[in-house]
Amino acid sequence: MTDRTLRGKTAIVGVGETRYYKRAAAPDPEFKMVLEAVLLACEDAGIDVKDVDGFASYSNDRNDPPRLSAALGCKELKFSNMFWGGGGGGGSGAVSNAAAAVATGLADTVVVFRGLAQGQFGRFGQGSTANVAAGPGAFTAPYGLMSPAQTFAMRAMRFMWEHNIGQEALRALSLTSYAHAQRNPRAVMHGRPLSAEDYDNSRWIVEPFHLFDCCMENDGAAAVIVTSAERARDLKQKPAYILGASQGSDYRQAATAHNSPDYPTSNFKTVARNLYAQAGIGPKDVDVLQSYENFTGGVLMSMVEHGFCKPDEVNDFFTPENFYFEGGKLPLNTSGGNLAECYMHGLELITEAVKQIRGTSFCQVPNVNISMVTSGPMVQPVSNSIYSSEPNP
Amino acid sequence: MTDRTLRGKTAIVGVGETRYYKRAAAPDPEFKMVLEAVLLACEDAGIDVKDVDGFASYSNDRNDPPRLSAALGCKELKFSNMFWGGGGGGGSGAVSNAAAAVATGLADTVVVFRGLAQGQFGRFGQGSTANVAAGPGAFTAPYGLMSPAQTFAMRAMRFMWEHNIGQEALRALSLTSYAHAQRNPRAVMHGRPLSAEDYDNSRWIVEPFHLFDCCMENDGAAAVIVTSAERARDLKQKPAYILGASQGSDYRQAATAHNSPDYPTSNFKTVARNLYAQAGIGPKDVDVLQSYENFTGGVLMSMVEHGFCKPDEVNDFFTPENFYFEGGKLPLNTSGGNLAECYMHGLELITEAVKQIRGTSFCQVPNVNISMVTSGPMVQPVSNSIYSSEPNP
Repeated sequence: MTDRTLRGKTAIVGVGETRYYKRAAAPDPEFKMVLEAVLLACEDAGIDVKDVDGFASYSNDRNDPPRLSAALGCKELKFSNMFWGGGGGGGSGAVSNAAAAVATGLADTVVVFRGLAQGQFGRFGQGSTANVAAGPGAFTAPYGLMSPAQTFAMRAMRFMWEHNIGQEALRALSLTSYAHAQRNPRAVMHGRPLSAEDYDNSRWIVEPFHLFDCCMENDGAAAVIVTSAERARDLKQKPAYILGASQGSDYRQAATAHNSPDYPTSNFKTVARNLYAQAGIGPKDVDVLQSYENFTGGVLMSMVEHGFCKPDEVNDFFTPENFYFEGGKLPLNTSGGNLAECYMHGLELITEAVKQIRGTSFCQVPNVNISMVTSGPMVQPVSNSIYSSEPNP
Repeated sequence: MTDRTLRGKTAIVGVGETRYYKRAAAPDPEFKMVLEAVLLACEDAGIDVKDVDGFASYSNDRNDPPRLSAALGCKELKFSNMFWGGGGGGGSGAVSNAAAAVATGLADTVVVFRGLAQGQFGRFGQGSTANVAAGPGAFTAPYGLMSPAQTFAMRAMRFMWEHNIGQEALRALSLTSYAHAQRNPRAVMHGRPLSAEDYDNSRWIVEPFHLFDCCMENDGAAAVIVTSAERARDLKQKPAYILGASQGSDYRQAATAHNSPDYPTSNFKTVARNLYAQAGIGPKDVDVLQSYENFTGGVLMSMVEHGFCKPDEVNDFFTPENFYFEGGKLPLNTSGGNLAECYMHGLELITEAVKQIRGTSFCQVPNVNISMVTSGPMVQPVSNSIYSSEPNP
């Protein structure tokens, strides 16, 4: 029998990030920012960029591997991979694809990256005629349902209604991210603290989402390097071993299945189960969590589906104190995340998860052994990943 | 040490193909044809379609896994994967991605597919204003270099000039495919035999490519099922074990690098070496070869770079007799391939490679133990794969 698992076979050994910018504020082209992030990740790992032999990304990243490989002077390209679909749901999925390639010898040194310059190429999530010209949008746009904020809002509203969850739960997520961002000088919202009053007084984008429930729009690039666990031991940084990485979705939960049998869901039910089975741990073992917030409502459902609390415990559990890195029961989004550090499509959550393993976060949780990421919820397929300070904890 | 290889860990256990149609002749939508191909592959394998838990494709296939999974009633989606870039170069790459997922337990039953209805969505390879509005095309289009036929012709011409290769070598490839297609009732060119005179008298598309050096345009869909070697043993068909599958490209050979240091190349130099190393065999061990022909010139270079002959042996080696399935030294494109069976973007080459292992091709080579595919050359990244009748031959 072959050993059909990813558990502990690979590790993230380098992270690189450009400065993160507000939308349209980056002085460099997106492609150049990706090159910079890759070079920084290599420097961080102590790896010669010429030895990078694979690239993985998601959400139809524009910066294709042959161009990257040539521009970076890599000796050879051995793996060129895209997580298919899922918008921001693919960050951990790209890590899982990279880890599978390394674990099977398809490549040795794979960069997982995301470059995003919304100021240069246009926006995610804009309601436009292109969205409604064909496909399911043609059925909803005439009623004004056009943007992701609107679509996600309906699902969050339904979940909150079914489980009697108050607005304060969403507010807690927003306040947590902004509080952490105040300690993170790289965060775009560093120096812009948010109070409960600010949140309450901010305008509705679409109920139940205030302005501060919605992710930012940013320019920048981030990259991490995946290699084998054996090699990781001899490199410069403390490895973040990939204990598990899962991707996919539940039964009949197509991205646009608004009539699905289980409408208010983040699509993580089966993917969460698969991740824990692969990693051999459970939610109680997680020391720190990064959970993708295009909108806070997704975090709510994702955390419930990952077993961090039951629906009827949300109102009590979701407080800024419980999520704060100092003394919190479950430190959450410790860099400020998509809301307040940078919307690098969730790859910045993976870099933060690695930093927590290393002990180098600006909001460092003490003695982190297990660091987890749930990438973007709701838009299928989704993905998640667990990192560990040991290959076999 | 972990066992970092794909060799013999997985197998193709089912193949499914719709009827192949001329461009715009399919009565069904592309999506429906993909569903049909998947269902046929499951029936062929003796697998319940509900157990399919992964999908892999290439070249930005339009039929995304969440929609497929929902439409087919699959229990769960665990793997959603796109080979990134490379046009038709990704068929074997998608197989390698699927095999890596199965070998590491990310999924158990992965469908690799390609649906293509050029009549419904438009053509590959059309010279258009979109191709020249931005990017490298802006530099070549003013001089009339707009279509893939033109771009590939220049590289083939250079290779033929450097090695004093005659037009007869390309003609041999075309005649071979048409000869095989006459025995394959599924081939679009079945009943349309091609003589040397027909070839010589056909019009130039762009020198050195006559009409019959160019692939067809077709509608249809094809699918294969990848699962673990252990499970393959208990299924309905004789497994085609995946002995190796490699993807990538050489140093600084970006897709549009017309000024690359090694211009007349199929980009298979390093990928060929990696494939043989992974599979533990060499070109002399190959019993039957399927080599992707968008244009015959790519086959020429790809076969040389895979070590089937030296450049100065091409004029002698490239004859219809040497490539014919009966008595040929190296039976080639035994279904008729992209030129004469169907341009299903090369996935039809993988189904044919599997049939050769099973012993069920219309042009069956006796006692096939090693069956090889080189997916599309020249447009990076490229990929290739080797199938075997035994997991460890």
